[in-house]
Amino acid sequence: MSKAEQTKAFIIEKTAPIFNKKGYEGTSMSDMTTATGLTKGSIYGNFANKDEVALAAFDYNLQKVETIIRLEMAKKAGAKDKLLVYIDVYDNFLKHPFPQGGCPILNTATDCDDTHPGLKKKAASAISNWKNKIVVLIRTGITCKEFNKNVNAEKVALSFIATIEGAIMITKLTGKTDYHTIIMQTLREMIEGL
Amino acid sequence: MSKAEQTKAFIIEKTAPIFNKKGYEGTSMSDMTTATGLTKGSIYGNFANKDEVALAAFDYNLQKVETIIRLEMAKKAGAKDKLLVYIDVYDNFLKHPFPQGGCPILNTATDCDDTHPGLKKKAASAISNWKNKIVVLIRTGITCKEFNKNVNAEKVALSFIATIEGAIMITKLTGKTDYHTIIMQTLREMIEGL
Repeated sequence: MSKAEQTKAFIIEKTAPIFNKKGYEGTSMSDMTTATGLTKGSIYGNFANKDEVALAAFDYNLQKVETIIRLEMAKKAGAKDKLLVYIDVYDNFLKHPFPQGGCPILNTATDCDDTHPGLKKKAASAISNWKNKIVVLIRTGITCKEFNKNVNAEKVALSFIATIEGAIMITKLTGKTDYHTIIMQTLREMIEGL
Repeated sequence: MSKAEQTKAFIIEKTAPIFNKKGYEGTSMSDMTTATGLTKGSIYGNFANKDEVALAAFDYNLQKVETIIRLEMAKKAGAKDKLLVYIDVYDNFLKHPFPQGGCPILNTATDCDDTHPGLKKKAASAISNWKNKIVVLIRTGITCKEFNKNVNAEKVALSFIATIEGAIMITKLTGKTDYHTIIMQTLREMIEGL
């Protein structure tokens, strides 16, 4: 990496947790200079504007989650076990290097849906990609006769994601991890019933 | 209502959609003066600070949702039909006087979870109250033999709420109402299977 690329990567790494916690609107220039120890001029010497930092920060946070899932899935063979990885990871996210502030899709979704179209687009793509990955997994499971051939992959995938995201929201909000555990139990039964 | 109470109510009514859309951090004093047509001095003559306006705005938005649900439930007799009201309302929320910006619990949950403890507490209470209402409904359904006696009311209630909130998030983000419909179908089947 060039010196400029290193500085950009450093700015992203340091500001990503703040954007994830405080949202796009809530993250100030002073948050960014404090987190990086850099001046405003130095940050904007590397990024055109706050938008560009926020978009890069979202990618950084999302990649963190995707890497955890990919590494855990690589350890599993069947479609059912791979699908259960999402539950295991989200049920034990404190044990994994999850982004500070929680799920970047959820945070971006509710922070930006009315104020920042660029971030909204990125988070919407993230949901679509996630849904498509689960659909492929379920169809593989159907082909391998792990799952019933009548399973509606699209419906299961979307309901699965909705429940995971809703569970994170409820748990962060209430601080009750037993709520999360009990909701994940419903999802496990859903997968076992496919 | 006294003149002061009327002014307070007016400020809440006008700022509630903004807090719901832009979040606590994202809502500026200038947003508040523009929405109300009042000066900063006039707003702070009626509220101690931004916190107080935000908390009142949350209550206002939540009450809007609760009123819709209460009115629709009053039209239904059985526990199953009352439970299905949540799905019907959330599946057709554009047909109801839903708060602008969507579900206030979801918006508050992700906006404030790391920055505003007062709002967080209110949204957490809203989740608990909602969960308790569903638990009571399910237990009534068990007593009336509408639902199976082995149903875990707590688990169903929490999974139900998680899925509804997750579905709203996904739909607002992607703009795909068919995603919402398909997830609500999963919830309908869940209720039918109780």
